[in-house]
Amino acid sequence: MRIAIDAMGGDAAPDMNIQGALEAAREWPDVEIILVGDEAKLKPLMTEIPSNLRVQHASEVVLPDDEPVKAVRRKKDASMVVAGRLVKEGQADAMISAGNTGALMATGLLVVGRMPGIERPALAPMIPTVDGKGVLALDLGANMDATPEHLLQYAIMGSVYRNKVHGLTKPRIGLLNVGTEEMKGNELTKGAFPLLKEAPIHFVGNVESRDVLQGNCDVLVCDGFVGNILLKTLEGTAGTIFSVLKQEFTSSLLSKLAAAVLKPGLSRFKKKLDYKEHGGAPLLGLNGLVLKSHGSSDARAIKNAVRQAREALKNDLVGSISAEISGKGAVQ
Amino acid sequence: MRIAIDAMGGDAAPDMNIQGALEAAREWPDVEIILVGDEAKLKPLMTEIPSNLRVQHASEVVLPDDEPVKAVRRKKDASMVVAGRLVKEGQADAMISAGNTGALMATGLLVVGRMPGIERPALAPMIPTVDGKGVLALDLGANMDATPEHLLQYAIMGSVYRNKVHGLTKPRIGLLNVGTEEMKGNELTKGAFPLLKEAPIHFVGNVESRDVLQGNCDVLVCDGFVGNILLKTLEGTAGTIFSVLKQEFTSSLLSKLAAAVLKPGLSRFKKKLDYKEHGGAPLLGLNGLVLKSHGSSDARAIKNAVRQAREALKNDLVGSISAEISGKGAVQ
Repeated sequence: MRIAIDAMGGDAAPDMNIQGALEAAREWPDVEIILVGDEAKLKPLMTEIPSNLRVQHASEVVLPDDEPVKAVRRKKDASMVVAGRLVKEGQADAMISAGNTGALMATGLLVVGRMPGIERPALAPMIPTVDGKGVLALDLGANMDATPEHLLQYAIMGSVYRNKVHGLTKPRIGLLNVGTEEMKGNELTKGAFPLLKEAPIHFVGNVESRDVLQGNCDVLVCDGFVGNILLKTLEGTAGTIFSVLKQEFTSSLLSKLAAAVLKPGLSRFKKKLDYKEHGGAPLLGLNGLVLKSHGSSDARAIKNAVRQAREALKNDLVGSISAEISGKGAVQ
Repeated sequence: MRIAIDAMGGDAAPDMNIQGALEAAREWPDVEIILVGDEAKLKPLMTEIPSNLRVQHASEVVLPDDEPVKAVRRKKDASMVVAGRLVKEGQADAMISAGNTGALMATGLLVVGRMPGIERPALAPMIPTVDGKGVLALDLGANMDATPEHLLQYAIMGSVYRNKVHGLTKPRIGLLNVGTEEMKGNELTKGAFPLLKEAPIHFVGNVESRDVLQGNCDVLVCDGFVGNILLKTLEGTAGTIFSVLKQEFTSSLLSKLAAAVLKPGLSRFKKKLDYKEHGGAPLLGLNGLVLKSHGSSDARAIKNAVRQAREALKNDLVGSISAEISGKGAVQ
């Protein structure tokens, strides 16, 4: 299987991307890594190139502040766009990028292309939960507005992903809502509920946002606007609380001593809530596998994204989603 | 000014409601308190009745699990409904209830009635912020779906409330969104942005959910579905983190000692994040003042709600909102 890595995307590119790619190539001989980026910059940073890694030259770079659609349309030789083209043209089976999220979604739509039958692809990161297992949430920002039918497709794609990539036999699908009763919610969730109930998935009903961290479902379905609000509220609240704790813990010598005692437990907990621990976010519903790695990805994160892509490819994630969406898949 | 208190609503009713009402009556001689509930139950609990407090008999009670609209329509002699009728008929200037939120919103709409010109009343609680000042957020659940015009009315009502009740001269109005740039968001926020920009308010633009706790605006505008997701995510995340901290802090004798050192600082912080510290939530856009006190209200919370109602009445909140909505108000 051939996995293209955008060497130039992310805060720590290209160094960490290269290092992650090298480590992945060494760990999995069955994977062929295609490192996409400026050859003149990449090659001097690699002393020894494994036989299952090659560099594909791309002269341009999508920048973090670039307007997504414009960047993808104009920078035809950007590393991200070239990686997308490799997938489109069947020269790669998957691509990974830690670059501009909006541009990657545009690359998915405009370069890789939508899967037939899918109305809207969805961005599906894992949200950390206190049990450390995490919940796949989608859509988290690919489309701001959604219809009940879109939510149904998100649910099916999320269910297949959790099954094929994480090995869950009967992923629990929850609908993000303002109450657990069936008739709760806005027009969108009220329209989606009966569709999810009838779908070939293990639908566990409405899930309240206050319970998301408790891990009471494996896939959380919502529109991109609400999903984004949810994720950023989680991050913002946790970040604020931990920063206030830090202030309190360093306010005196005595509190510093006390904090030192509690630090190992707190660090364990903070790590559990760190979304970086959960790997990249797939863009589901495309004609190929596209993984968004976190912007601050280090070598380990890039390597983990390769692991994830490898797992998805081994289990034919894209083909399984396609079969399920066109109604040919077996009921999970 | 006459303030009706639903004596039977809330987890600690009627005891705490009575005690709060008595304390309020004693503190503010210019207020006439009308305690609404079952006379046979209330009177034995009051040893001394101040001259500015009277009991208004109501034989029924809206229960926490009652279906809101049905309860309000059928239980015509419920304490909450009777309190609403006192406002409607001009026998009270305001009402306070700690009972069933949905039923109180139905009482507002069906009994008290909408203010002319207002399409949708909004529930507007304070969300705590780390600076302790809080932000008024609306709508937080009165209406699940909203149009850009509804958000505009929420913004105006919130601005008048912060000005009249909290004395802010130029309340900063923010639009809850997924990014700070003008063109970000879904159809709703993209439609609302230009309306807010043109409105006679101090609009500070889009506000991201991750920044809400930082207190970067005084009024946060959103639809009821998203607002509910936001509030419950905040509560759920903070609650989860504090409960995990508690486990960590009591895991050994040493950690207990360490935690004892840090406890005062943590308690101060937890108190800041406690929404109960911020009083009741007004239902804005009605033909009278309706305040929702928290379900777990104690005597202090009820008394604080009276303080809030008194402040709103002194400054003619309802008249000011009406003037502003009909375009007769001065630009703030």
